[in-house]
Amino acid sequence: MTKILIRSDYLLPGGDNWNIIRNAELLIEDTVVSYIGAQRNYPVGVIDRIIEGKNKLVMPGLVNAHTHAAMALLRGYADDMPLMDWLEQKIWPAEARLTKEDIYWGTLLAICEMIRGGTTCFADMYFHMEEVARACLESGIRASLAQGLIGLDASQGAARLEDSKILVSDWHGAGEGLITIMLGPHAPYTCPPQYLEKVISIAAELSLPMHIHLAETRGEVQDCLDKWGKRPIALMDSIGLFKQQVLAAHCVHLSEDEILTLTQRQVAIAHNPGSNLKLGSGIAPLAELLERGAMVSIGTDGAASNNNLDMLEEMRLASLLAKGSCEDPTVLPARKALKLATVNGARSLFLKEETGLLREGSQADLIMLDMDKPHFHPYHDLCAQIVYAASSADVEMVMVKGRVLMEGKKLVTVDEEKILHEANERAVRLTR
Amino acid sequence: MTKILIRSDYLLPGGDNWNIIRNAELLIEDTVVSYIGAQRNYPVGVIDRIIEGKNKLVMPGLVNAHTHAAMALLRGYADDMPLMDWLEQKIWPAEARLTKEDIYWGTLLAICEMIRGGTTCFADMYFHMEEVARACLESGIRASLAQGLIGLDASQGAARLEDSKILVSDWHGAGEGLITIMLGPHAPYTCPPQYLEKVISIAAELSLPMHIHLAETRGEVQDCLDKWGKRPIALMDSIGLFKQQVLAAHCVHLSEDEILTLTQRQVAIAHNPGSNLKLGSGIAPLAELLERGAMVSIGTDGAASNNNLDMLEEMRLASLLAKGSCEDPTVLPARKALKLATVNGARSLFLKEETGLLREGSQADLIMLDMDKPHFHPYHDLCAQIVYAASSADVEMVMVKGRVLMEGKKLVTVDEEKILHEANERAVRLTR
Repeated sequence: MTKILIRSDYLLPGGDNWNIIRNAELLIEDTVVSYIGAQRNYPVGVIDRIIEGKNKLVMPGLVNAHTHAAMALLRGYADDMPLMDWLEQKIWPAEARLTKEDIYWGTLLAICEMIRGGTTCFADMYFHMEEVARACLESGIRASLAQGLIGLDASQGAARLEDSKILVSDWHGAGEGLITIMLGPHAPYTCPPQYLEKVISIAAELSLPMHIHLAETRGEVQDCLDKWGKRPIALMDSIGLFKQQVLAAHCVHLSEDEILTLTQRQVAIAHNPGSNLKLGSGIAPLAELLERGAMVSIGTDGAASNNNLDMLEEMRLASLLAKGSCEDPTVLPARKALKLATVNGARSLFLKEETGLLREGSQADLIMLDMDKPHFHPYHDLCAQIVYAASSADVEMVMVKGRVLMEGKKLVTVDEEKILHEANERAVRLTR
Repeated sequence: MTKILIRSDYLLPGGDNWNIIRNAELLIEDTVVSYIGAQRNYPVGVIDRIIEGKNKLVMPGLVNAHTHAAMALLRGYADDMPLMDWLEQKIWPAEARLTKEDIYWGTLLAICEMIRGGTTCFADMYFHMEEVARACLESGIRASLAQGLIGLDASQGAARLEDSKILVSDWHGAGEGLITIMLGPHAPYTCPPQYLEKVISIAAELSLPMHIHLAETRGEVQDCLDKWGKRPIALMDSIGLFKQQVLAAHCVHLSEDEILTLTQRQVAIAHNPGSNLKLGSGIAPLAELLERGAMVSIGTDGAASNNNLDMLEEMRLASLLAKGSCEDPTVLPARKALKLATVNGARSLFLKEETGLLREGSQADLIMLDMDKPHFHPYHDLCAQIVYAASSADVEMVMVKGRVLMEGKKLVTVDEEKILHEANERAVRLTR
């Protein structure tokens, strides 16, 4: 059994406890936290490694609850365009050229950025997901993966569902639970009710959660009303989607009734403020969702529409945007924002292992921030400094399941130089 | 004459030209750019220093058009509170304890953060401004400084105007133009029309621009209507404020008429999206202002209400928020956002020297970014990557007036360690 001892000037356990522990100690035995608290005179002779955190702060790793990692290859390829032009003229043609290998390298590019920014776990929806799984397993980052399902063509839809079953049998629980699989019906406008019913029945049969896009744009809501006579959330409710565990990305355009439905059905909502703003989709009613008690987490969406995968920035944006759009500075205070970006993320991925917070028995998914920066000073309230002032570049060390993925700002499980080189080479081909 | 040659893989001249120059060269003679373009075989024997930029990008320095630098001492001291409680219970009592020395050290803390984030010039309004000027001169950052004027008490108002005159004679143009002075009537609700008229006449007499807060909150607009029968912009117009050069911070709550007035009178508007969101002030009508042709720049406001001084983040937020609040992704595209954060900032400070862009004859105020990061890859469109994906930590080198202030991420003109230490010590006293 490997034992790692972390000593840190500051530690935030997370979950419901965002009180700083000063001069803290954390013992990790293999993949699990076995002690958290004040420094003891633990016999260092039995420790494999000691990680010292002078002027450092340890906290739970960030959970990115919605992204399309491999789209990092399309970062900056098309911006500032109307949504349909962006998709039809730029993104879809480029995606049509994506090979399995592109997905692998694009995902690794995203993983480099996510680890650097303190993300220890992410929910992904894309295609060639076995390549995504491979990149995650190699790099050691935790992920919940969904093959995007499009049901507009019956035979293609059925084939993709079969792919998903293979993905489940090959990868669900791989890496001792590092990788889990969801079903990924893309959205109501790409998956008609009849197809969604098939997906739901397989989700029930295999006990798998589903990851879906819901109510992202005003146009989507209107089209859904025109076509099916119901708004998206109501339509999904009527066909029984929410009887299963569901992670719903976006949820921007919601009626009062839909907010109630999402809350009552305990749908996990991945809020993507950066992408929703950048694509001109709008501003989600986050304050109302939180007030009703909805389970909200935070996602970056893909890098083609964000354009980074910086969860600290996304957490800050979620809080600021909620305050500003309500004209109420008390909305989504710092500790609540931290919860959304950590433990709520983990719970929204319906993981069996306890992640997203640090306590005895939880998974050792954690990050260490260097507090020796002007923007963290003075040390009035370190939670506020993290939410309102921190930068992804403050993350110095990242650990997932007890394995160090970054240390002293060096990525230790992947060859970053080769990944950046491959990403550039492939991007040139994709967008020629 | 000192000659510095910068060779860089990528260079953005700025102004109206955001086309990348590959394998670029920039020659600086003393404080001024004397060549910008492709690499030549310039005789290196006559060069004092060569700065190499492999995988680096040079661009104009960022201009923070509205802040209260010394408030960095109150960063994280009070957050998530209703505006009046925040001011009355927390900020004002702490500010009442601020000494001259606190202002000096607090400003240096802000300067450390600003230089690290690529800000080469800022507009400040606070008090004990001679201490702010001293900190700027020592550190080498460019600044336009205004003593905050409150005219609610006639004799105090008059005394502060006298202080401003001393500030002008002692500091206007100091450091060979590094420091300039504006008059700083705080806001219409703290400066009644009669007092403002005095300020305006001194501004005219001394040929000085004015820096003022305008239309920040909904409550301010209503109070102004109740008290003076006019909305703030209309009131200011009626007393002749806009006959002088004016830098107006915030401008969040504007009528159509007010947008027209601000545009016609060529008022420089410092847009502060982060602070406006965080304090729950609201969302400024940025798209309408830009469409009308208003002169808009970007500011962070003070770190007590932001809570960082990160201009790259602020520029990104300005663009994203404008797109999202209009539900139009074409609003404020990347190159326009870069303009707001650089040359528009410089012009909004009414500087005599040409700054905010790089061309022959302009001031050598510039920054170098390290592009060797996952979030900059692939290199599809470097302007988009800077606006939508960059981090303040990407800034590696900062130069103002031909003087290097940061190199290899080390601050070279200030003692950062001592400043961080002083900031923490003073913050404890201030908030005891």
